[in-house]
Order: sequence, then structure tokens, then C-alpha cells
Amino acid sequence: MKKFFFILSILCVTIAFGQLHPSIMLTKKNAEAVRLGISKYPLLKTSYNDLKSEADIMLALPINVPTPADGGGGVSHEQHKNNYKAALSCGMLYQLSKDERYAKYVKDMMMEYARVYNTWGRHPKRKTQPGGKIFWQNLNDCVWLVYMIQGYDCIYDYVSENDRKYLMENLWIPVVNEQTVVNGKIFNYIHNFGAWSTAGVGMAGYVCGRKDWVEMALKGGNKDGKTGFFKLIDDLFSPDGYYEEGPYYLRYAIHPFIVFARAIQQYQPKLKVYEYRNQLLKKAVNISLQTTYTNKVFFPINDALKEKTYETEELVYATDIAYSDFQPNDELLNIAQQQKRVIVSDAGLKVAKAIAEGKSKTFEYKSMFIKDGADGTKGGLGVLRSGSNDNQTCLVMKAASQGMGHGHFDRLNVLFFDNNVEVFSDYGSVRFLNVETKSGGGYTKENDTWAKASIAHNTLVVDKTSHFNGNAEVGEKYAPSLLYFDANKNFQVVSAEENKAYDDVKMLRTVILFQPQGAVSPLFIDVFKVRSTTTHQYDLPFWYQGHLTNTTFPYQNNNKQLLAFGSKYGYEHIWLNAEGKVNNTNGAITFLNNRKYYTTTFLADTTSKVSFVTLGANDPDFNLRSEKAFVLTQPKTGNHTFINITEPHGINNPLIEFTKGFIPLTKNIQLINDNETGSTFSFEYNNKKYTIQLQYNNKQQFITIK
Amino acid sequence: MKKFFFILSILCVTIAFGQLHPSIMLTKKNAEAVRLGISKYPLLKTSYNDLKSEADIMLALPINVPTPADGGGGVSHEQHKNNYKAALSCGMLYQLSKDERYAKYVKDMMMEYARVYNTWGRHPKRKTQPGGKIFWQNLNDCVWLVYMIQGYDCIYDYVSENDRKYLMENLWIPVVNEQTVVNGKIFNYIHNFGAWSTAGVGMAGYVCGRKDWVEMALKGGNKDGKTGFFKLIDDLFSPDGYYEEGPYYLRYAIHPFIVFARAIQQYQPKLKVYEYRNQLLKKAVNISLQTTYTNKVFFPINDALKEKTYETEELVYATDIAYSDFQPNDELLNIAQQQKRVIVSDAGLKVAKAIAEGKSKTFEYKSMFIKDGADGTKGGLGVLRSGSNDNQTCLVMKAASQGMGHGHFDRLNVLFFDNNVEVFSDYGSVRFLNVETKSGGGYTKENDTWAKASIAHNTLVVDKTSHFNGNAEVGEKYAPSLLYFDANKNFQVVSAEENKAYDDVKMLRTVILFQPQGAVSPLFIDVFKVRSTTTHQYDLPFWYQGHLTNTTFPYQNNNKQLLAFGSKYGYEHIWLNAEGKVNNTNGAITFLNNRKYYTTTFLADTTSKVSFVTLGANDPDFNLRSEKAFVLTQPKTGNHTFINITEPHGINNPLIEFTKGFIPLTKNIQLINDNETGSTFSFEYNNKKYTIQLQYNNKQQFITIK
Repeated sequence: MKKFFFILSILCVTIAFGQLHPSIMLTKKNAEAVRLGISKYPLLKTSYNDLKSEADIMLALPINVPTPADGGGGVSHEQHKNNYKAALSCGMLYQLSKDERYAKYVKDMMMEYARVYNTWGRHPKRKTQPGGKIFWQNLNDCVWLVYMIQGYDCIYDYVSENDRKYLMENLWIPVVNEQTVVNGKIFNYIHNFGAWSTAGVGMAGYVCGRKDWVEMALKGGNKDGKTGFFKLIDDLFSPDGYYEEGPYYLRYAIHPFIVFARAIQQYQPKLKVYEYRNQLLKKAVNISLQTTYTNKVFFPINDALKEKTYETEELVYATDIAYSDFQPNDELLNIAQQQKRVIVSDAGLKVAKAIAEGKSKTFEYKSMFIKDGADGTKGGLGVLRSGSNDNQTCLVMKAASQGMGHGHFDRLNVLFFDNNVEVFSDYGSVRFLNVETKSGGGYTKENDTWAKASIAHNTLVVDKTSHFNGNAEVGEKYAPSLLYFDANKNFQVVSAEENKAYDDVKMLRTVILFQPQGAVSPLFIDVFKVRSTTTHQYDLPFWYQGHLTNTTFPYQNNNKQLLAFGSKYGYEHIWLNAEGKVNNTNGAITFLNNRKYYTTTFLADTTSKVSFVTLGANDPDFNLRSEKAFVLTQPKTGNHTFINITEPHGINNPLIEFTKGFIPLTKNIQLINDNETGSTFSFEYNNKKYTIQLQYNNKQQFITIK
Repeated sequence: MKKFFFILSILCVTIAFGQLHPSIMLTKKNAEAVRLGISKYPLLKTSYNDLKSEADIMLALPINVPTPADGGGGVSHEQHKNNYKAALSCGMLYQLSKDERYAKYVKDMMMEYARVYNTWGRHPKRKTQPGGKIFWQNLNDCVWLVYMIQGYDCIYDYVSENDRKYLMENLWIPVVNEQTVVNGKIFNYIHNFGAWSTAGVGMAGYVCGRKDWVEMALKGGNKDGKTGFFKLIDDLFSPDGYYEEGPYYLRYAIHPFIVFARAIQQYQPKLKVYEYRNQLLKKAVNISLQTTYTNKVFFPINDALKEKTYETEELVYATDIAYSDFQPNDELLNIAQQQKRVIVSDAGLKVAKAIAEGKSKTFEYKSMFIKDGADGTKGGLGVLRSGSNDNQTCLVMKAASQGMGHGHFDRLNVLFFDNNVEVFSDYGSVRFLNVETKSGGGYTKENDTWAKASIAHNTLVVDKTSHFNGNAEVGEKYAPSLLYFDANKNFQVVSAEENKAYDDVKMLRTVILFQPQGAVSPLFIDVFKVRSTTTHQYDLPFWYQGHLTNTTFPYQNNNKQLLAFGSKYGYEHIWLNAEGKVNNTNGAITFLNNRKYYTTTFLADTTSKVSFVTLGANDPDFNLRSEKAFVLTQPKTGNHTFINITEPHGINNPLIEFTKGFIPLTKNIQLINDNETGSTFSFEYNNKKYTIQLQYNNKQQFITIK
């Protein structure tokens, strides 16, 4: 906090903006160099050409500022989105081409907004009060300002004094009022919404020379530092750069953080925003990339859409600025190459130039435990990786905090990736982005009833009830804690516990990547220790991708009739296809996914049950995908330790009719010793016996594998 | 037939084999040129390198000729497959590298086979009698010989006289006896099995100098021309080159036809096998490519696996030989580039050289009606295509014959592709190739009960009963007939009728691709006219890929319990998710597939019902995928004409959050006139009215669109 007040004091003294326009992503002093770079550096050239074709399409159409009417995906919604994108594209094009048609287009559009903006009431499709004005959500209005004001910066010098005045009075002041006063709650909200709102207002302040707007943006509506941009950086990120809402929302939030930080750096370099909180923003960009798998998709924990990869515009901004302004780490060039574009800007020039000079290096994914919580004490995300980017095995354990409104009840959930695909997956969110008939493109009701439920995740569900009884407020109060993390040459392990998800059940999960001699891929070894003084039903689901090929135990298939697996906490959305009893000390389930086999061999006893289920019940609007799981169940017990080992094995390529390694080599899991302080078990791989000892209270020798 | 006897007479006179080895794909006289080409032409080089790494892996392992034990996918099965592939690879390597280690490896392996072959009994996993010997099916033994004998040809000169004699007596003679006598039924079977069997025996005859074997291969076991290779060409192909079992099996069968034809051309050029039946084999290769979609997959009609593309080895052989030996059509080079390999051979050299010389041209997919039946009178396949290979709309109507044992009850079935993906799909077969736990890698029982059933296809089902009551023998007797085909600039149309699938119901389907002014993609217009003097239930299913986004009518969803849609003819495999009544003159269903919307608008009346279904009931071993369909039902009627128009529209890209064109522009389908001789209907697209008149008996003016 000391540091923060120090910065505040600098802020009050030094605020005196340079008046050159533009000054944010593309700057007056670098415009000529960027122009030259376009002809020299291929990635800058294609990015410029793409920008130009987009801008030219808009330029050919009449300016259209419709009265707000539709929800996400609707005609007026999309038109306003196209407008703000065009304002920025054409603004940049004007700076780079000096073709005044682009500037005139942006100015005319802004004049039209200024003419009608104050005639509009609240948005008719708003779902909350006061809601948005141009869009149904205020959030979209905030995004609108972030783009528009950058466009305005680009054409500022082109606009006459009179028109600037007109725009100021009829557009910028009302819009800033809309954000800071009418939707002041969002402006001061410690949430990604707040980041977008402060970024737009702050940049408007810089561009229009309104120090009061900048001050509000940096220090909050009351200018007291209790909210605002710096406070957002303080509270939303962990010291490692993890973002409370998870990777998918970090992707979304990083955009305003990065662009506004760049603006602050340009206008008030003495604030040292890039250095703030031990270079927090640099760490956040790195974490955003490190929380993707090699398929480029963000780990889809919490409310995530799996379509979002690091190719999104937000990450193009983040990657370019990180390389240009934070540190020229050549691994970022590799990401920029995958993104196939740069922002046509000062930063994009540096990236495209470095790539053209052959500096790109393979992006190195690392195993790490990423701490969550503003002070780093709210658990975190364990990420274990093995293998090259072509063929990486990756295991993620979510031992992080609730994640606010977009959080799921998924304590100690695991995600398992291999061979460039999901193996044990997280559903993500139930949302059809920009599909108007699907809840206006927003989250559908099944997002609450299904996607957030514990049973939707690869983690323990007690008595068919979600963690914290599905109460997010209670969930917000507690976080799992890390017991141990290590990633060495012989094995990788992360262990965490969560003792508050249920009143009288303690959950302790240890997940290990271990590659026995002769194995092509590491095994995913999962030890889920549950303790309770009372008896419960324990369900441990695995939502697998692929097609079931065999089991070592018989099951009864519900061939003629399907019923829901339960009546609430997400169970009402699941059809029960089949059930079996293992009746042996081990059971095994094999499935085929992307031409590779996966066998989960698990410890069992005479009471162990396995259910095979499909998602889709109680889904009146067909909003759910048909995902499949097997659920390991201990129907009535107090203390129990699940041990299961998932082995990737073999290959089956129907194209060339090649197959091998169909039979898994893992077998005979035996629990040797299990008590409060430790668990010891053995298994065989390829007829060689391995013994693993976990000592939960021994940080020096937490795990031994012999 | 005259022509055939003429050839037979030539055969008897001219048979006198050149004794140079090798003489089939790679020839002695060209080996030096191929060697040189490897260093010059990139595609030949990478193909050679791939061949060499495969061969070197085998060379490093001890020779392993296990006693036959396992079904498809099992260890001994895969080892014997690896052996025959290695025999050919190492044989070629020996010719190209002159490294005797390769020749020794092949010889040693063959000697080992010769040592043990005659000690083996019938294969323990055979499902039919007598079944195979090395493999569970005789078919695989035939494939084994096709590869092995080519490998032997390559090392022939290396093998001593004594060893040749040993191999002849202990391997080749017994193997040929196994094929021509023990499994003589297959050898003389007019089926792809027969093609593999005759090809192997015939090539063995050429390589080992046994004219009697060649004669049997060409003229059948009785050497009377009633079976054998030429008869197979006569009977299995239509004059257009269509193969009765469909594109997927054409892919499989083309391999022995092409390789053996090449051998015949080398040894007995006077037989003019390439010219046989108006260059039938050339046509067949062309048809095999023309029956793929731009995703490279063969149209999956009949028992097809969707994993099979024109990248399979069979099509590499076919493409290379077609270019080298039939006609150097530069569009084939485009295919070879997609295949990313050539056969390291005389033909592969020509292909790789031409590609290196920049001769490749885009492969041109064509709209065509491909006649089925040996005499071209058994209906055929209508293929309508529009757009470039990047973004092609393709409509296939199967108006072909039953397709023997691998045929489905899918008369007048349609497949619709767009935007590089399946839109209305065919399930293909229920088979997990080389997955031993899934019926030994063969077809599972659901292939008969589900995949072949009429309801599994996008065609009419009457009274919930499959065409021909699911009796293939009856189906074999009849074929649909083509009414009309045209593909011009303004529209494309194919119309066919099938009057024997049901005792008292006549089916006449006309499908049209028509692109109204302003449309980005053509509309798929479907007119299915059904006539009967008695009342029936008519179900018209559309198995769609993608996610349902909206309907214009309400439906009742079976939220808590799913029941099977019926009890037989495939209906027992379908869960009924929801049902609705349209209660309007038109209904519409929209789904989102690969970021594009598709809306099917259909003519309805007060009795019209729509069911939404999912595959998966009565599937005790989880062999079925979760496919989805909507089924249009007229519950009780005699004559009825279904008219539905499927419009591809809009775009929804969640990555860049871009959407447009969500609302379809097709509406208001009206049936104006409908009788025995014609149907006239109108619809609006983008508020413009179009009227289509079909005159079923008027070949001069079958269709008018105004």
C-alpha cells in the first residue's frame, strides 16, 4: 500500500499530458517507421492489408448508427460493434495512409453518434438496471469507448476545433457520465467490467485532455484509490499474475489492462505502470499464455468458451505490447507467428521486425503452480506438463478460489490433455456467443444449473450435492490450500486440500505425472483422499472425450429407457446409460480418443460402482452438448481413498490401418497403507512394480516413488 | 463379350513373360532413374525417406513370424501385416539402395514363412469356413500375397536358385493353393475379395513364371472367363467406372485392380488391359476421386468408415499409376500433393517430377450423374457441386443399386456438404477398425440393425419399416431409375424414382441446388413426392451435424425420461428427445455447424409432426455415436409431397466475436399444383418470389425456375 500512495503522490504532481495525437498504440512519432515497416516485414504487411480490407468494407457503406434495439448477436448490436471496430481501423488507416477519406468517415460516424446518443433512453433489452445504453450490457458500452476513443485519438488533428467541441459536449462527456455516474457501480467494480470501464474513461481523459477523468480512472470514482485501475491491478491479480476469474476471463480482461497501461506509460511515464506491483502486467501476460494448452485454447475452467484461443485480438495486443514494452522475449514471437497478425502499431512493428529477422524461439510451456488471491494465499492452479509442444501431456488441477460470479463449484477439479486434445475435459460454460435465440448470446440458464455444478467437473461430489451447496457467496470465503508442488526430471506432482466444500468432509487430492521406464507418455496418477466421520456417497466423475472401447467389468445398460441421474445439483441434466459393479480389487475402462487409447485403472472394492452417463436431460431448449462420463462411486463410506491411474497408450490409425499398443500396461493397484498422515500404494507397469509413498505433512519428502 | 474372347485368344498365344526382376511398380530398367529422381524431386525424396525409416525400423527387429492367433487389431494379426508391408518396403529399398541387408531381411522372412506355413491349421479366430490361414479372414491372406509377391519380385535376383526352389515349394505353391483351391470360392467371387485374390495369384504367376496361375487369375479358377480378373472388371463396375459397393469400397478394391493391371501391362502389354472396356480402370480412378468431398473423405454411403480419405495408400497407387500410365492429367498432381507422398516407383517418379516442374493444376470437382450397374442401367449417384474447392456446396443423391452385402437400405438418400464439413450426413458403418474389443475390428452387430436401416439415412421411411423390409436379396433385384439430371449455370438438379422399396408406395425425389440473387451459397431444394393408394406414416429424417439454435414452432421435450423411437428397423436405436406439431403452413429449424447457420424451411400442414432424436438406444456395448436428427412426419396419408429448402446462411465466429446473417431469407413455401405428372411450388428468398415447376414426364423441360 505504501508504494501505491507514493504513486498517487507522483500522479498529483506530474499530471501534464503531451498533446501529440495519436499517442496510444500507434504514435505520431512512430507512424512513419510503421509505414516503412509495412513494406518490409511480412507479418506487418498482412496485418495492415487485413486492417485495410476491413476498413474499406465499412468505408463503402453508408454510416449507420441505429437506435439500440437488439440483444447480443442482433442487428443493431452487431452494427454498433462494427462501428467501434471501424472507428479504430479507419483511424489507424488515416494515420498510416494519410488518406483523409478514412478520417472523414470516423469523424462523420462520431458526429452522428453525438447527434443521437442523448436522444436514446436505457437499452430496451437490458437485463439489469440501469443496464447499457448503446448495448444491452453496460460492459459493451465500455468496450465501445475503449475502441472509439483510440479511433478519435487517430483523427484528433483532422477534426476542427468546433467539431471537437461538439463531440466533447454531445458525446464524450455524456458517455463518460454514463460510465462514471449512471453505471458508476460498474466503474468502481473490482471485476473485469471495472477494467474496461476505467480504461475507456482514462484514455478519454488523456485524449481529450481531461485530467479529472484520468484521475477517476486511476483512483476510482471517489478519487481515493479504493477503486480504479491501480486498485483493480492490486485486487484482481495474484502476485504471480493469476486472475481470479480464471484464464478465459484473464484473456478478456487483459485487453483493457494492457491498452490503458500503454496509454498511462505514454502520457505519464513517471507512474511506471509497467513496473507496478513487481511488473504485474508482464506476469499476467505470461500467465495468460501459460494457461493455454498446445491446442491454443485457454484452460476452460469457470465460465469459459472453448472457441477462445490465444489467437484472439486481446492476446494479440497483450503479446505485442509485452514484447515491445515489457521485455523482448523471443518466445513471444513464436506466439505472434501462431496468431498470424500483429497490431499495426509501434509494438506490432517491433514484433514483425524481430520475426523477419529470424529471432523467433519456440514458446516454452512450463510446469508451475500459479498462486491465486491478491496476496497469493488463495490456493492456485497446478499445471504439470511433459513433452514437446507437438505432443504434450498436460495435467491441470484447479485448487484456486471461487472466481467470483463466473466461478464453478469445482474444487480440486482436474483437466487432462494429451496428444493435442482434451482427454478429461471441463464443460466450460453453457453459452452460444452472439446467437440471439440462445438467451441473447449470453449464458443460458443451464450455465447455473449444469456448468457450475460440481458433478460437471472431474472432482469429488458428496451425497450428490455441489460444493458449498452451490452457494457462491460461501464459496468465495474459502479457498483450497496447496500442500505440495514439485516438477523434477523423475516426476511432477501437485497436492492440495479443500476442507470447507462440505461441512464434514475433507478432500485432499494429489495428482502426479510419472513416466515409467519404457512408457511413451507419462501416466496420470490420481490419489483422492476423502475423510469424514460420517458416512456418505462419494461420486468421482471423469468427463472423457473419445469412444469407450472396453471395460474389465460387466455393466447393465439401460437400453430401452433413460432416466435422469438425479434431481438437482446438475444430476438432473445427466442421463444414466449404464451401471456396473466392479467386484474386484481393480477395474479398468478404456476409450479411444484422437487415434490414441486411454485406460483408467482404478482401485475398487466390493461396494464400488461405476456409472456411464451422457449429458442432456432436462434440457428443454437443447442448449447442452452430449458429453460423456464414467462416474466412480463409493456408495456408503466415511474415509476413502480413490486411486486411479490413467495411461495413454498405443495408436490406432484407421487411415493407414495401423494399430499397436491396444493393451494397457498398468495393472494391480494396491493400497498398502493409508492414514491421516500418508498414503502408500503400489502398481505394476509392464510387469515392473512401483511403490509410491505420500507423506502429507512432510514437505521435505512429500513423495517417494520406488 | 466378343471383345473379351478376342483378348482371351491373344492371351493364349502371347503369354511369354519377360524375366527381368523387378517388373511391377518399380522396374529394373527404371531403378536408376528413380534413384536419381530421389535426390532431385522433393515429393519422391520425402516418400523415399518415409519408406526407408519404416523399413529400417523393421530391419532392426528380429524376424517374427508368429503362429496365427488373433483377430483384427490383435498382436499376431498386426505382426503379419507389418511383415508383408516390410517385405515390400525392404524389397524396394534393396533395389534403390543396393544394400543387401534389405534383401537378406526379406529373404529370411520368406524362408521363415516357408518353414512354418504348412504347419499351421485353419485360423483359430475364423468366423466363416474355411476362413483364413495367416489371418482370420482369407481376404487378409490375399492382401498378404499382393504385398509379399511384389517384395519377392524386388529380391528375386538376390535369392539363390536353391532358395527359390524352397520358397516355391513351401510357400508360393501352398499359398496359391490356399487361395485358388481351399478358398476357391473367394478366388472366383465377383466382389472386391475376388479382386485381391486374383491379383495376388496373377502377380505370383508373373514373378514365379507360372503361366497357369496367371491364366487362372485372368480367366478364373476354371480358366473359362466366367470369373477372374477381366470378369471382375466387367461385372463390378458400371460403364462410368462406378463400383457397385460404393466409393468407400471402390477405394479398397482399386488397389488390386490397379497394381495387377500394371503387372499385366508390364508382362503382357498386348492384352491392352488399360484399354479394356473403354479404359474402364482410368474411369474408375477418376470416379474414386470424384466421389470424395473437399474434406478428402469418400462419400460415406453403404458400409463406410469416415476416416478414409483419398490420402490412403490405395489411392496413392491409383493416382500415381493413373498419371503415369493412363494419362498425364495435371489435376492428378494436385491430388498427389494433398496425399503428400508417391509410391517410390516408375510412376511415382513421373508424378514427383511433374510436381517439381510446377505442372500441378487444381483438381476440378464436377457435377455429374454416375451410372451404376454393369450395363449402366441400375440408377446411379447424382453429384451436384457449386463453388470452389475452398468452399464448396455439394449435394449427393444415392439412386444407386443395393451394393451387395455392404449396401444400405437408403434409396434416394441425400448427403449435403458445405463449408468443408458434413451438414446432412450418413452414419457410415458401425465399425472400429482394428479395435479388437469391438467385434475383432469387424462390423459390429449394430451395423446390421442400425447403419443399414432406412431411418439411419436422409430418406423416406414408410410405416417405420426399412426399404424392402430390410431384405438385401430383394433389394439387389431392383434399382432406382434416373428421371433427370442437369447441371447448368442457373441451377443443378437430379431426380430419380424408386417404386419397389415398398409394396404400394412410389417414391420420387428431386433435389436442386439453386442460388437466388444475392445468396452467398446455393439453396438445397428438396421435393420428395410420395404416392400410395393406401394410408401410411411417412418419416423423412435429416441427420444434421451441428447444434440446434431455434425452431419456428413449439415442441415438447422429454426432459426426465427418454424412450426408444420404435422397436425395430433401426428405430430401436433412437432416443426420442422431443416432439412438436407445426400447426402452420411452413416450419423452420435452424442449426449452427462449423460457424455457419443452416435453416431448413419446410412445407407443413395441420398433421405435420417433427421429432428431435438422438442415436444411442439399445446399444449395450456403446458402439454408436451420438448423432442427432430431426424427423419430419406425416402420420397418416397416401399421396404426399414433402418440400423443404435448406439455406446455408450467415456466420458466427466466436473467436473474433463476429456474427452476421443469423436470420434466414427463405420463407413461405407454397405448393401451387401437384399431380401425377408434375409439382409446382413457390417460395420467397429475400422477399423475392420464385416459382419452380417440375414436369416429371417431360425430359425437354423437366424443370423451370422463375
